[in-house]
This record gives sequence, structure tokens and C-alpha cells, in this order.
Amino acid sequence: MRYNFSEMTDRRNTNSVKWDVAANELPMWVADMDFRTAPGIVTAIKRKADTGIFGYEEVPTAYFEAVQHWYATEHSWAPNTDWMRFVTGVVPAISSAVRRVSHIGDNVLVQAPVYNIFYNSIVNNGRHVLSSDLQYHDGQYSIDWDDLTAKMADPLTTMMILCNPHNPVGKIWTADELKRIGQLAAENHVVVFADEIHGDITETGYGYTPFAAADEVCATNSITAVSPSKTFNVAALHAATLIIPNENLRNSVDRGINTDELAEPNAFAIDGSIAAYTTGAEWVHELNAQITANKQTLTQFIQKKLPQLRVITGHATYLVWIDCAEVTTDTTTLCAFIRKNTGLFISAGSVYGGDGHDFVRINVACPAERLQDGLDRLVAGVKDFQKA
Amino acid sequence: MRYNFSEMTDRRNTNSVKWDVAANELPMWVADMDFRTAPGIVTAIKRKADTGIFGYEEVPTAYFEAVQHWYATEHSWAPNTDWMRFVTGVVPAISSAVRRVSHIGDNVLVQAPVYNIFYNSIVNNGRHVLSSDLQYHDGQYSIDWDDLTAKMADPLTTMMILCNPHNPVGKIWTADELKRIGQLAAENHVVVFADEIHGDITETGYGYTPFAAADEVCATNSITAVSPSKTFNVAALHAATLIIPNENLRNSVDRGINTDELAEPNAFAIDGSIAAYTTGAEWVHELNAQITANKQTLTQFIQKKLPQLRVITGHATYLVWIDCAEVTTDTTTLCAFIRKNTGLFISAGSVYGGDGHDFVRINVACPAERLQDGLDRLVAGVKDFQKA
Repeated sequence: MRYNFSEMTDRRNTNSVKWDVAANELPMWVADMDFRTAPGIVTAIKRKADTGIFGYEEVPTAYFEAVQHWYATEHSWAPNTDWMRFVTGVVPAISSAVRRVSHIGDNVLVQAPVYNIFYNSIVNNGRHVLSSDLQYHDGQYSIDWDDLTAKMADPLTTMMILCNPHNPVGKIWTADELKRIGQLAAENHVVVFADEIHGDITETGYGYTPFAAADEVCATNSITAVSPSKTFNVAALHAATLIIPNENLRNSVDRGINTDELAEPNAFAIDGSIAAYTTGAEWVHELNAQITANKQTLTQFIQKKLPQLRVITGHATYLVWIDCAEVTTDTTTLCAFIRKNTGLFISAGSVYGGDGHDFVRINVACPAERLQDGLDRLVAGVKDFQKA
Repeated sequence: MRYNFSEMTDRRNTNSVKWDVAANELPMWVADMDFRTAPGIVTAIKRKADTGIFGYEEVPTAYFEAVQHWYATEHSWAPNTDWMRFVTGVVPAISSAVRRVSHIGDNVLVQAPVYNIFYNSIVNNGRHVLSSDLQYHDGQYSIDWDDLTAKMADPLTTMMILCNPHNPVGKIWTADELKRIGQLAAENHVVVFADEIHGDITETGYGYTPFAAADEVCATNSITAVSPSKTFNVAALHAATLIIPNENLRNSVDRGINTDELAEPNAFAIDGSIAAYTTGAEWVHELNAQITANKQTLTQFIQKKLPQLRVITGHATYLVWIDCAEVTTDTTTLCAFIRKNTGLFISAGSVYGGDGHDFVRINVACPAERLQDGLDRLVAGVKDFQKA
């Protein structure tokens, strides 16, 4: 490999949210990585820093062309640059879109268990969460189409937030599934917001289909959010892109992101993103190989040492969703116990809703050596929990 | 001087909003500077870039201590660090506070002519602009206290946005004026949002009084916004601080900035701000000397070459407000004419409301050589306009 994903980076005392933990603790929770980003991004940021002038920044055409290039070469989809708007982040854009697309008191549809912050964007804006919970059977998640159809048809349902690929279960939706969601949404006048922030992180041999690339119906009735944030470990670059093929919808959302002050980039967001999208492909492919290996390591280790747990086979994200129902249906207590007894800090599943209380989410985007430390702590923690 | 404020920096093709102009044009409009920022800031940003990991960033205690240190040493006011909240910008924070402090349909009080974006924050959120226009007499602006008193007393008035010091007229409010505003506001249950983004830019020999430092009444009933943005030419650092001594008000505004996604810093905002506030004082003092000299140059040049214009004597900001009433009461047409004929791009005053249509605003934060170019174009433009 050309890049080094083995370095035991030290992120303590760097203002890192993830690493704001006690000296003996090992954080494998919030979704950022312990790897250094692609070198081209650092170079671009330092070049910008050298200009020494950080006045009001605008978004050049080159930015949108870089996004287009990335999706064309990585995902066989070349969205028009005219469809794109820069935003400072996916989550702020979701909140803004909720305010533009739906009304107070409306239902916003999600598929629990799902990224917990979706709930904030809905509830904080006075809308209601309506979940068509994913069905869980024999270690696999799937859509309950009858339930989804009924909830789409509720006149109060005006928007759906789709997580594609799905966090935390790691599932890559097929083009057929996306088309079926798109058809239901269009029939029921439900606008789909597709959060595709994890789309680039897929196991070797797997890829994802952007929602708007599934078919014309999906494209016409959707807002897609993409970002180098997860892909390149640059959450704090504060850069994301909305892709909205429908002109009327685009104009409405555009108004929202401007009123909500999400449309202006910081001094490093543009140059950093362009560098990512134009020089970072090989780095991402190697990253995905490392994450694939880490997930295999974790899966084999748990099968061997903790057969009472069940690792869900998702092929996307660097987050692993683990069924702990044989140990407990209250993983909040389990995770607190593990953290207190071993220092391993992982995410309890209840915040994601649905059947999350049976699960834990583990972030494996770290060097193999650190992963092994985490796995050893996990085994010790679960075993002690079962003895206690 | 230790720092160089004479370098003819080239900001074309750097994604600069200000410099997105034709090849022959000279922009002296939007409020950022053509000077390189303090070297300590660049060093801090590059040091952060070298870490190569830009995951979720949190705000350390050192940030708030740096803000406190700056206000204590530069402005004789040491606000408690507990009163402070990080935000990604002053304008987004104003919009957020408008939503938390006032209700739809309320009046938000301003003092026109004033920073035009205040109007957006009010109108875009469904509130009404109520202006107690500043009185203009003999080249000086002052508050019409009877008018302000009546407008504060309107039951629909629930908030005031104070610009301290005042953009675009450059006026530094005295402690007595601030106390009188604070008293009126408290009596009428009007919350004051003090935008103090220009507070550090004062002519040599002058300083400003933070609103909350004027007295306890002012402190208890206000939200103060400060930022290194104008001071250090780092608008795109996306860093600002709210200072809210009143715990109840602070909790309410804090909820708003979190819901509105304004509370999370980008990867460079914290280290850059700390460097500014702890290593940048001498740079700012020299900057202020340069701006003072530039304002003198402009004033003397206009007195000599364009006596039909009148430069308003403000002692703060790098923006100069110029009365053109003897030439026209429609400076929008004048500015368009000057831009078309000379390439000089300055701000027409009508966007600031009040009597702004008689005025232009010129940004003098540039090397003396560039200023002289601008002044020569101004003279040619005004003379041609009067001949046309």
C-alpha cells in the first residue's frame, strides 16, 4: 500500500471530540477516523494558509466540477454542476431542508435504527418522527414494504430522510430498493432527503448507488447530500454538497441554506474538498481495503471469542453493528459497564431507535493494532458483564 | 513597524468574494482587508494542518481564556469564561438569536443607516424592522432619544440589534450612550444584541466600550458578539464568541445555536482564534496605525480634490462613510457610474437604510498605494459623473 494506515496516531489534546476521554480509555464511538487524511488535502490547506488572507470566500466552478468528477469516476454518476449547492455540513443542511420542505406538525419518515441526529433535525424543528422500522431477521435488516407504503401514504408525511448507505446497520441499498422507495415517495408527494455521507466507504468489491442515480423518478423528487467528511476524515473541514436535480425544489432549498447561513465556505473548505475529490481516489481505495480487513478481523475475533454476539453483515461504513441480544436487551448498561471496567468507549444502540437497545455500534476506522486493543477490551468487558 | 502593511497583495483567483471583479476593477466594498493576517495565526493553522486529522472538533477552555485575555488587555473588560459560547459567525448568531429572543411579527429595533445584513436576519425570520434612524446634522450622527424611547416602548419591540462601534458611520458609542440605551431596553423588556465585530478597529488614541461593560443593567440584558473576523482579516475562519452574562438568556440562546448547528468549530477556528487573541496584539496596534493613516490620507485628499464630498468623522472601523448629497441623492447610480467608468467598486449607501442614499461607503483596509489608486479613480469618477 502506498499510504500508511498502521500509524498509531495520537489524537489526545487536539480538541478532538472523540478523544476527549480519560487516559486509560479507548474511544471507538463517534464517526471519525484515527487515520491521517490524504496528503493532497494537507498540502492544499497549507498552500491556502500561506496566502495569509482569509476574507470572504466564494465557491468556484472548479469545486462543483471536482464533485462531479468524483461521482463520475467513483460511482458512475455525473450529476450536473448546476444541480449542486455548497453547504457547511450535511446535518445543518438536513435541518434546513426539514424547515423548507415540511411544515410544523408534519411527519418526517425515517427507518430506525438510524443515525440519531436525524431525530434532532426533525424534533428540534417541531416535526414528528415517523419510523418505518427496518425488519430484523436472522442477522439481516430489510424494509417492511407494507409498513413503509402505509406510512408514506399518511397525508401528514411530507418528507423522508434516507440514509444511503445505512448507518448504523451498514447496509447498501440496491438500485431496485431505491427505485421502489422513490416510486412510493413520488406517488405520495413525499420529498426524499438522501444522506449519502457514507457512500464512499464500501468494502472492497462493493459500491453504492446514489439515490438520484437510481432512476428519473428518484432524481426529480430528491435532495442528495454528499461530503468528503467521512470519506477523508475531514468532519471539521465543514464542507458538503447538496445535489438537487429538480429546479423548483433546488430554489426552495437554496433559499433555506442562505437564510440559515449554511452557504458560505470557510477558508479551507473549498481547496481541501477539491484536493480530496481530484487527488484522493487511491487513498480512499486503500482506506477501504484497510476497513474491509478491520471488519474481517473483528468478525472473526468475535465469532471465536464472543460467539454470544452476532456481527451484522453490512458492506458499507466503518461502523459495525453488533447484536448483543443474547447478552442483554439493554446495551446502554452494557456499554457503560464496558467503559467503566475496560476503558473501551463504544456506542450503545438505543439512541438509533428501533431495536437498537439490543445492539452496540463500534467504529473500526483505526490502525489494526488499536482495533486489537479494542477487541481485547470488548471480550473482557462482555465476559465480566455476564459474570456480574 | 514590525509588520508589513504596504505589500501589494494579489487576491485575484483566490476564491475571494471581494476580488471576484474584472481585470481593470479595484474593489473597495465588502468588509475584508487586503492585508495578510498576523503571522501567528498562519503558523497555528499550518501546525493544525500538519496533524492531518480533521475529525469532530470541540472548544477547549483555552479558547475562552484567550477571548477573556484579549478583552481584559485590549478593552479593560474581563468577561467570565462561563458567559461565553463559541459560534461559527456573528451574522448566523444574530439570526439564531432573533429566533430565540423575539417572536414572529415582533419589531426588532435598529439604528439606520446600519449594516445591511441586520435587515436580512430580521426579515428572513418573519420579524419587522423598526428603525430609530440616527440623526444627521453638520457631518455628525447622533441618537434621537425621544424617537428611540418611543420605539423601545412599543409592546411589539422585543429586541434591539446594536452595532457597537457603528457600521457604516464609524461612530464609537460612549459609555453614557450605551448606559442610556441599556436603561431604556431594560425598562421596556427589550433584549439588546450588541454586534461588536468592529470593536478592535479604532483609530490610534481611541478605544471602544463593550456594551456589557458599560454597567450591570447593560450586562444583564444583552448578548454580545465578538470575533477575530474583522480585526485579523479572518472572515472565513468562521469563528466568533457570544458573551451572555445572564444565565437564563444564555441557556435560551445556547439552545438556539445548537439547534441551528452554529456551535461546532471547523478544524482551524479554535487554534487560529487562540493564536490571534494571544499573539496578535502588536499586529492589531500597527494595523490600526495604518488604517488611521489611510483615513487621514483619504480625508485630506477628498477635502482638496473633491470638496463637494464630506467625509464623516468616525473613529472606528476601516470603512469610511462619505456624504455625497451635494453631488447626488442617489448614490446607487453614482456608484454604478464610477464602477463602469473607472473600475472602482465601492458600496452605495441605500442598502444601509435611513439617509444612506446620500452616502457611499469605502473600505480603506489596503496598502497606501492601492488606496491612492482608488482615490484617483474616485476623483475621476465623481468629476465625470458631474459632467455627464
